Amino acid sequence: MEKNKQLLLKKRPVGLPTKETWALTEVNIPQPNDGEFLMKCEYISLDPAMRGWLNDVKSYIPPVQINEVMRAGGVGKIITSNHKYFKEGDYVYGQTGVQQYVVSDGKGYHKIDPSLAPLPMYTGTLGMTGMTAYFGILEVGELKEGDTVLVSGAAGAVGSVVGQIAKIKNCKVIGTAGGADKCKYLIDELGFDGAIDYKNDDIAIKLKEYFPKGIDVYFDNVGGEILDLALSRLALHARIVICGAISQYNNTSAVKGPSNYLSLLVNRASMKGMVVFDYAKDYEKASLQLGQWMMQGKLKSKEDIYEGIVNFHETFLKLFSGEKLGKLVLKVSDD
Amino acid sequence: MEKNKQLLLKKRPVGLPTKETWALTEVNIPQPNDGEFLMKCEYISLDPAMRGWLNDVKSYIPPVQINEVMRAGGVGKIITSNHKYFKEGDYVYGQTGVQQYVVSDGKGYHKIDPSLAPLPMYTGTLGMTGMTAYFGILEVGELKEGDTVLVSGAAGAVGSVVGQIAKIKNCKVIGTAGGADKCKYLIDELGFDGAIDYKNDDIAIKLKEYFPKGIDVYFDNVGGEILDLALSRLALHARIVICGAISQYNNTSAVKGPSNYLSLLVNRASMKGMVVFDYAKDYEKASLQLGQWMMQGKLKSKEDIYEGIVNFHETFLKLFSGEKLGKLVLKVSDD
Repeated sequence: MEKNKQLLLKKRPVGLPTKETWALTEVNIPQPNDGEFLMKCEYISLDPAMRGWLNDVKSYIPPVQINEVMRAGGVGKIITSNHKYFKEGDYVYGQTGVQQYVVSDGKGYHKIDPSLAPLPMYTGTLGMTGMTAYFGILEVGELKEGDTVLVSGAAGAVGSVVGQIAKIKNCKVIGTAGGADKCKYLIDELGFDGAIDYKNDDIAIKLKEYFPKGIDVYFDNVGGEILDLALSRLALHARIVICGAISQYNNTSAVKGPSNYLSLLVNRASMKGMVVFDYAKDYEKASLQLGQWMMQGKLKSKEDIYEGIVNFHETFLKLFSGEKLGKLVLKVSDD
Repeated sequence: MEKNKQLLLKKRPVGLPTKETWALTEVNIPQPNDGEFLMKCEYISLDPAMRGWLNDVKSYIPPVQINEVMRAGGVGKIITSNHKYFKEGDYVYGQTGVQQYVVSDGKGYHKIDPSLAPLPMYTGTLGMTGMTAYFGILEVGELKEGDTVLVSGAAGAVGSVVGQIAKIKNCKVIGTAGGADKCKYLIDELGFDGAIDYKNDDIAIKLKEYFPKGIDVYFDNVGGEILDLALSRLALHARIVICGAISQYNNTSAVKGPSNYLSLLVNRASMKGMVVFDYAKDYEKASLQLGQWMMQGKLKSKEDIYEGIVNFHETFLKLFSGEKLGKLVLKVSDD
């Protein structure tokens, strides 16, 4: 009889997760009660934010508990349903967790259409990634036409969409990424105006070249040194969007605070944090806009897809090693 | 013949200013040309921001140059005038610099009325200090009735006005200050709901007690550890106003960046810098309001006045040692 493979959090990591962080287990496939459905998960979204959920600290959502299925967004097909809205054969997105099957009452789930776009894209540009980019740059960053924009982690899932949206809004867009290939990708494939290879370039000098009059909007996915250098290059009334800080997530010592934060005072600038869930009521509007931009060829989506729930650990680490391009997705179903 | 004593910047300080930072000199009293007036400076405003003006770095205004008269706001009386608006006998406020006499074309000057309030108060609560507090807490901090408010440097010139404005707006207000006397002053004299003695209290524990549901607005004059602890105690959608960072101004090493800045993300909070000059067009409105609150007994103003331009150096250091209460003012005229 087929089983449901699940990935459990076994031990809280200090620093980078190790194999001991996780345990793979098999349980019986659950059956839906009245008002519930059973879904087969096909693709799981892998995101830097997941690292934060492993820490036993107060945050915007509770940490994943030990021996609990690892939290993750996923897409797949409904196998059987006792739910009045979600029917057998429907494709859906939801917080499935890292497992092959899940029973849900539908809370937080929504239908997706695999005939319009490939399934994995609904975990990325047409999913939470796209939402984060959309609300982050347009609402939190208060993007205006003609702004000069810096995006860190620009070859990543969120960053690549942020940069493209800013280009659509006629902004000058520079991205930071690790390595010449990713930088070339930003310029040649995504239409960025420039790229900074943080592994090889002198970031401060490049920022000075690219932003002679300062940065209007800095969309920060990485924190650390790049945040500090961006702060030292702000334009008057600049806005910094704090979306993430991947450089700091696996720290075993304290997070590096931005020493140059007094630039906020000098430049009457702001630094604002965001969590995408706050924008849930407007997801549909954003999805439509992102979908339209994709149809018009203005917005490209790139997924980097790996296979096998048994490979979760190695795949997850690619988020932090940078060995991936665009949205990192794991195919967890066996077929 | 009477001379004009001036305090010049002689040598840029590293860390805390020393006697070698300054030089006192005497020059002839200047005479006004057409369209100018001669003013006798009576009181000079001493502010933490002045420390920043000594550093040779790009900021919101150019640094004071070596051998230049030290920049400062001051109040006094016009002695002779060839100006069509500012007349002999008028009392005025302007950027006089640290000296006893100044000739000006009136740019940036405005008249004040010593019959309504004592002269030194026009350098403080009815001057730039009051303006900074007013626009900082109400506009940058977007203060709402019922907010929980933390003010650092609360016994200082700006902080004490910020806290009182927040009380007028029916907020819960807690201040940090150095020493039991200042804390008592905040509660007994200014009506704060509580005070934290940062020299003797466990700040983190006190913040937890005073803000069980988190801080809505943090008005920061000090930076450093208190900023970091406040960040770890934010309420959802909190606003941090970065007005100053007195704990960091005399650093000889790098400024301490706020390690807990990712709390901005978790709490969808913002940190925003301000410079009071941006609000110049609304100074009059704010002055009227502040004056009205004073007349109604809702707003108290405290000036700590020292005498003698020769004592500038020792008096200036009181800003950083904390040996003063309220607005620090230096009387520079000899009579």
